[in-house]
Amino acid sequence: MGYFRETIEKMEGYTPGFQPKNPDAVKLNTNENPYPPSPKVLEAIRGIRDFQVRRYPDPMGGAFHQAASEVFDLPEDHVLCVNGGDELLNYAFRAFCDADRPAAWAEPTYSLYPVLARLQDCRAIQIDRNEDSLEELARINAPLTIVCNPNAPTCDFTPVDKIAELASRLEGVLLVDEAYVDFAQDNCLRLVRDFANVIVLRSMSKGYSLAGMRAGLGFAQPTLIEGLVKVKDSYNIDAVTITAAAEALRDQAYHKDCVAKIIAERSRMIGELRKMEIAVPDSTTNFVLAQSIQMPAEKLFKLLAERDIYVRYFKLPGLEDKLRITIGTPEQNDQLLRAIKEILSRE
Amino acid sequence: MGYFRETIEKMEGYTPGFQPKNPDAVKLNTNENPYPPSPKVLEAIRGIRDFQVRRYPDPMGGAFHQAASEVFDLPEDHVLCVNGGDELLNYAFRAFCDADRPAAWAEPTYSLYPVLARLQDCRAIQIDRNEDSLEELARINAPLTIVCNPNAPTCDFTPVDKIAELASRLEGVLLVDEAYVDFAQDNCLRLVRDFANVIVLRSMSKGYSLAGMRAGLGFAQPTLIEGLVKVKDSYNIDAVTITAAAEALRDQAYHKDCVAKIIAERSRMIGELRKMEIAVPDSTTNFVLAQSIQMPAEKLFKLLAERDIYVRYFKLPGLEDKLRITIGTPEQNDQLLRAIKEILSRE
Repeated sequence: MGYFRETIEKMEGYTPGFQPKNPDAVKLNTNENPYPPSPKVLEAIRGIRDFQVRRYPDPMGGAFHQAASEVFDLPEDHVLCVNGGDELLNYAFRAFCDADRPAAWAEPTYSLYPVLARLQDCRAIQIDRNEDSLEELARINAPLTIVCNPNAPTCDFTPVDKIAELASRLEGVLLVDEAYVDFAQDNCLRLVRDFANVIVLRSMSKGYSLAGMRAGLGFAQPTLIEGLVKVKDSYNIDAVTITAAAEALRDQAYHKDCVAKIIAERSRMIGELRKMEIAVPDSTTNFVLAQSIQMPAEKLFKLLAERDIYVRYFKLPGLEDKLRITIGTPEQNDQLLRAIKEILSRE
Repeated sequence: MGYFRETIEKMEGYTPGFQPKNPDAVKLNTNENPYPPSPKVLEAIRGIRDFQVRRYPDPMGGAFHQAASEVFDLPEDHVLCVNGGDELLNYAFRAFCDADRPAAWAEPTYSLYPVLARLQDCRAIQIDRNEDSLEELARINAPLTIVCNPNAPTCDFTPVDKIAELASRLEGVLLVDEAYVDFAQDNCLRLVRDFANVIVLRSMSKGYSLAGMRAGLGFAQPTLIEGLVKVKDSYNIDAVTITAAAEALRDQAYHKDCVAKIIAERSRMIGELRKMEIAVPDSTTNFVLAQSIQMPAEKLFKLLAERDIYVRYFKLPGLEDKLRITIGTPEQNDQLLRAIKEILSRE
């Protein structure tokens, strides 16, 4: 018998996106917000006091928990603070799934889900993503169904009424992964009030520029929150993240301004890429999924990296011919567009 | 079928120690360091830059990872940075244990272990802690054996050569939980070089005054580290914690000074408590386990809390008649001693 469980021995781990050391690299590969966090976040971090560093933090996330409850207008017992959205996904698999309790979702979507299913030794029912996926997920009726909305990396948004219908038909839990919802026109938060089986996941990494701080949120009715708390590490979020995330949430004006700038740049980028005959579907996220027709995506990815411009390439079915490009600042986007133009013109 | 796995429905979660809001409370209940972190830690936190907050952190812990490798003189591939020591325990259960792969340890010890075993649906082989425990653990030869050393909450230290012998006899993994080792006379780090099956856990919460930052370390040979990384959240430690923990580790002079002060106070506290006819065994940690003979421990615990003095009471077999008291500053310890004297004299 080896040291590890057989599953662990055999599996590949999840590969996070490359993090270049150079702070001036054009980094459009991990869907970070190109704008700095609210000035109030930096102020809060700098105002941290000795005793906050020295003592254990509030297990439920203190000021972050309160701010989320107020800003999203749900009682505190409907809110779970997590060390990044991935942590909530992790808790969901451990709370709801095992060898007899599968999870279901439509592919392509966030590539972490199958890794978490594998870790938990639960069956992953992965259906093809198309017009009928929600209908099929309802029929499958798994103990855990995940819908990523807007979906990564396809950028499209499923209307909330369709997700509500799915929730009403499922006997198990429906987790709506809204990591990118800040850049979409609607969201599923209101379903938490109506459905006992819905969990809505939010991230502070994209819309609030806090990827470096690890902060995410789960919203659900108290029965689900209480069960997830049993799986949670006692002190999953540190004192600095608590204060930083609280300040970021409370500065909604700054947040909305950043989001509006990114949405404007998204339109421009899509237009410019299409002019270069790169196929780009519309996007409701802070990135686009560009299909390079003239050049294999992997080659374009490498040539951009040589210029210190980083985008994301997934060697996965349905994605091998595409690049996922985060929307940056106007200057970064211009650098990327110029580089692509130059690379393609040399072919 | 309920929303949750049956295990989750039925189990009780772990209850973390009470965190009073008042920063001036005499808080001797969760084994925090009573001294502030190194001034370099606060300086590092205040020096954090926008791009560190905005971008995802280094998945392996960057500067913290490097500092740990240097300070503890082990290659970087022998080091895993974690979001508090509890996170490493969590990873260990998920990597090594399942329904067919039990974990074993001697009780009483850290009360989180059985909670993690329950979550993973693995059998917990809990033997009585006595002179023969290590011999018995060797015979049981579980896929995961845990030895907490110094042991919490009993405060005693098992000699390293005995733990080395246990490691040599086990076919599975031996995790040595050294959360409190900064206050002991020796440690098991050298076993990592000699044994492919040993993991040493360290915490930054106690010896380095970073409980609020969530930082811990795992040391093991690369095969074990690589498998644990598969279980790890991609970005488990945030950018501020990375820089804070790195600075705390590099300021060894400050760390050693704090530890020396706590060890001196520990001797004084044990002497003073014994004068009050409270039974207190010697301690190799930053707390003592005091047996209140004149008054039930739970009653003394409550009367102290009424005076804004917090110690830890566990309603668990073998611990119901005892209080776990963290060593504070001389002033805090004096306040506690005076309060106990007064309470007992009124009986």
